[in-house]
Amino acid sequence: MSTVIAIDVGGTGMKCALVDSAHRVLHTERHATGRERGPEAVVQTIVDVAAGLAARGDAEAIGVVVPGVIDEVNGVARYSSNVGFRDVPLRDLLQGRLGIAATLGHDVRAGGLAEARLGAGKGRAQVLVMPIGTGIAAAHVVNGIVASGAHGAAGEIGHIVVRPGGPKCGCGLIGCLEAVASASAVERRYAELAASTLTAAEVSARIDTDPHAAQVWRETVDALADGLLTGQALYDAELIIIGGGLAESGETLLAPLRAALSEKASFHRVPEIVKAKLGDEAGCLGAALLALELLS
Amino acid sequence: MSTVIAIDVGGTGMKCALVDSAHRVLHTERHATGRERGPEAVVQTIVDVAAGLAARGDAEAIGVVVPGVIDEVNGVARYSSNVGFRDVPLRDLLQGRLGIAATLGHDVRAGGLAEARLGAGKGRAQVLVMPIGTGIAAAHVVNGIVASGAHGAAGEIGHIVVRPGGPKCGCGLIGCLEAVASASAVERRYAELAASTLTAAEVSARIDTDPHAAQVWRETVDALADGLLTGQALYDAELIIIGGGLAESGETLLAPLRAALSEKASFHRVPEIVKAKLGDEAGCLGAALLALELLS
Repeated sequence: MSTVIAIDVGGTGMKCALVDSAHRVLHTERHATGRERGPEAVVQTIVDVAAGLAARGDAEAIGVVVPGVIDEVNGVARYSSNVGFRDVPLRDLLQGRLGIAATLGHDVRAGGLAEARLGAGKGRAQVLVMPIGTGIAAAHVVNGIVASGAHGAAGEIGHIVVRPGGPKCGCGLIGCLEAVASASAVERRYAELAASTLTAAEVSARIDTDPHAAQVWRETVDALADGLLTGQALYDAELIIIGGGLAESGETLLAPLRAALSEKASFHRVPEIVKAKLGDEAGCLGAALLALELLS
Repeated sequence: MSTVIAIDVGGTGMKCALVDSAHRVLHTERHATGRERGPEAVVQTIVDVAAGLAARGDAEAIGVVVPGVIDEVNGVARYSSNVGFRDVPLRDLLQGRLGIAATLGHDVRAGGLAEARLGAGKGRAQVLVMPIGTGIAAAHVVNGIVASGAHGAAGEIGHIVVRPGGPKCGCGLIGCLEAVASASAVERRYAELAASTLTAAEVSARIDTDPHAAQVWRETVDALADGLLTGQALYDAELIIIGGGLAESGETLLAPLRAALSEKASFHRVPEIVKAKLGDEAGCLGAALLALELLS
């Protein structure tokens, strides 16, 4: 039985674990990312935390996942606005410090891999995992392998234009799915309509009593269905797993989403739509899977 | 050196060949599909033509590709409006009659595979092949393997909605890429604007002298760039190969398409865009590749 170190670096916190080759989580810890200290300090923290985990036992490999554009082949974090990275050769830094095999992955793709292999997608061949939180992205997993694309930028379903002429997206385009249907978009749209603020979870909880909340939710579900319809035209998945903060609304989100997708579909085969199972542990487990692959 | 039979069944004609394992085309023939005779007669013609090719020599396998929704795992043509097929177990019919290994594939995916492996994509890892003709579809080929999707319906890039509220598509949706940027859409749009008819090739040849042609071409290129931008967000290809009738316009299409895609791109890595090399032989060569895979 081998053990690996897994670290999921997010904009605010780092989730860390020791995981064995039966995918059992032997130990976890969380640390602040401290991105306000600048990228060099963040890298130092990652390496120090990794060294601390390595000192606890006999880990044979380490997997680290970060958001943004990742060059998985060369182990370089090309660009990550959330943690301030630009061309950080994180894999080699970790390998140098720890002296064990290291791998660098993308948080959404690694989390999607974990959901597809160990979570809600277990036993299914063609899965699209789509976390909806501050942003929206996806991991397309076929036979347990996640597509990274030629430049580590595949699966950017949040940047399908679903509302031409709609709100401006952080990416620079107009009317992206992320700009109209992410948790942040739900909150922004509610504030526009109601002139008061609610979290996305609160909006979802009030759709039966607050007409503004109901309208925001309808618009969100409609946009998500349009985005998934396009995703389905290109990927033809058998199962779509919705994760991230917005998935915590459960059937309040999924039931109307299924109905909207079925209604909009023409030639498309309508996939099953379910909620993610691994919650916010998915990225860290995905990092462990990537590390375990180094040993297989 | 092995030899295989390859047949590409289209709405009007069937392209047939004997191909060896070095991908040399040893013999070709063409036959009318005769779809007006009904699906049973078409199937009979395919089987007879295949038997005739088998009688010419020592073919060890046969690959047949057809348009529509193909269940490649079970070798069944689920639905193909072009040739009138519904749940035709073509692979088993061929195997039964010829007594050699048979495989059934999808025309666009098989053609894309041939373009990616043997044509304009030779030596490239992440390729999107998009023929633009009467319709628009794509084959996403990664490391020489084409993605089929869970139900044989992946790559339907022609059915990305790029113009909400635009023209109705044959698929039932409104504003699909195919409805605004296929060769047929170019012809329809020109007729609308100019109240006279031209072929898509004629429209492309007149963009410097005919303002209606220029407008149709601008609209077409703009829609194609929007569709490819979405495709790129999901697939992140390194190379896009444009085939089909519209690609015969060459740089008249590709130069403004490259410019439009670069201008519209935000985070996207802009892929190279080139013209297909294999022309209308791609599907038949792809059928041969599928058959050769049975022998490897």
